[in-house]
Amino acid sequence: MGEEANCNVVLMEAAKSPKENGHSGVAAAVTDAPASAAPTAAKAVAVVDPRLQGISDAIRVVPHFPKQGIMFNDITPLLLRPGVFKDAVDIFVERYRGMGIDAVAGIEARGFIFGPAIALAIGAKFIPLRKPKKLPGEVISETYVLEYGTDCLQMHVGAIEAGERVLIVDDLVATGGTLSAAIRLLGMRMPSFLTVCK
Amino acid sequence: MGEEANCNVVLMEAAKSPKENGHSGVAAAVTDAPASAAPTAAKAVAVVDPRLQGISDAIRVVPHFPKQGIMFNDITPLLLRPGVFKDAVDIFVERYRGMGIDAVAGIEARGFIFGPAIALAIGAKFIPLRKPKKLPGEVISETYVLEYGTDCLQMHVGAIEAGERVLIVDDLVATGGTLSAAIRLLGMRMPSFLTVCK
Repeated sequence: MGEEANCNVVLMEAAKSPKENGHSGVAAAVTDAPASAAPTAAKAVAVVDPRLQGISDAIRVVPHFPKQGIMFNDITPLLLRPGVFKDAVDIFVERYRGMGIDAVAGIEARGFIFGPAIALAIGAKFIPLRKPKKLPGEVISETYVLEYGTDCLQMHVGAIEAGERVLIVDDLVATGGTLSAAIRLLGMRMPSFLTVCK
Repeated sequence: MGEEANCNVVLMEAAKSPKENGHSGVAAAVTDAPASAAPTAAKAVAVVDPRLQGISDAIRVVPHFPKQGIMFNDITPLLLRPGVFKDAVDIFVERYRGMGIDAVAGIEARGFIFGPAIALAIGAKFIPLRKPKKLPGEVISETYVLEYGTDCLQMHVGAIEAGERVLIVDDLVATGGTLSAAIRLLGMRMPSFLTVCK
C-alpha cells in the first residue's frame, strides 16, 4: 500500500516548544494523496506567535505515564481553558485555510479533539484514523512503533480520493511514528518523517 | 460519588430519527453539577429542522458490527460531507449557546469528534471522558453496561467545579448506559435516564 507512490509535500509544524522529552504539543502535517501533481518538496516552518506561550503553559508534563521513564505531555488542562483551546485551533485554521486542504485526518483519540474543529473551520471533510476493530465496513490498516510498544491505525477505504490534499492532526509528536503511519495509511511512500521535516 | 446529589436538570435530544435498532444519531444531554440551584425538572424536546434529513441520510447502518445482531449506526460518512457535519454541530450550538453551559463533556472516542467543536463555539471548556488508563494523574471512574459488554469511563478529578452546568456529547444513544455513566461520573445521582427523558 503506497510503496510506489511519491511523497509530494510534507509540511510539519509544532504549536509549542519541545518539552524535556522531545515531545511537541499539538501537531499537524500536510500531505498530498499519491496522484497529486504537486512538486516534490519538504520544509520545516518555524512558528512565532504570542499565543504559543499560553498554549505551552496549559500543557502539563506528567512523569512516568503511561509507564516508568515516559514524560507524558497532557493537553487536557488546555481544554479546560476555552480561550487557550480556541487559540490552539485558530493557529492551525489560520495557517491551513486557503491551502486547498480537502480533508483533515485525525488520529485516535486526541487527534479527534483538534482535527474536527479545524476541518469544520476550513471547510474540509474529517477522516478518523482509528484503532483496530473500531471502524465498520472495509478498512485499510497500518502498524507502527510507539515510544512504548506497537499499535495500528485503520482508515475506511474510499475516505480519500486520489489527488486530495490531507492535513493530519494529532495532539503531539514524540518519535513521529504515528504520523508516519498515518501518512502511509493515506497512500504515501514511507518517508523518514523526522529526517524530512527537521 | 454523587450518590447523595440531586438530578437537577436532564434535557436530552436526538438530532435524527431513531433507526431500526432504536439508536439515535448525534446525542447530547445537559446536566448540572450537584451544587447547582436549578430546580428539579426533566423534559424531552422534539426537534424538527430541515437539516435533519441530510444528517439522517449521511448516517449508515452497518449490520452485525461489532458483533452478530448489532445494527451499528456509523457516523463517519457524515464526517465526509463538510456541510452536513457543520449542520450537525450547528444544531447543537444553536440550541445550547446562551444556556449557561460551563463545560462540554465528550465521551471517548466519537464524542470527541462533536464535543470540542460545540465547546469552542459556545465558549465552554471541554472535558474528555476517557476509557481506563488513558488519563494521567488523579481520576474518578464509573463502570457501565453496554449493548455488547461492559466498559468504564474516567474523568480527571477537578475537571468540573460544583454548580457548573455540563453538556454531555456522544455520537449516538443505544441503551443510554454510557450517558448514564457519564452523568454519574459528573457527580449526579444515578437517574433512570431513559425513563426521565422519554
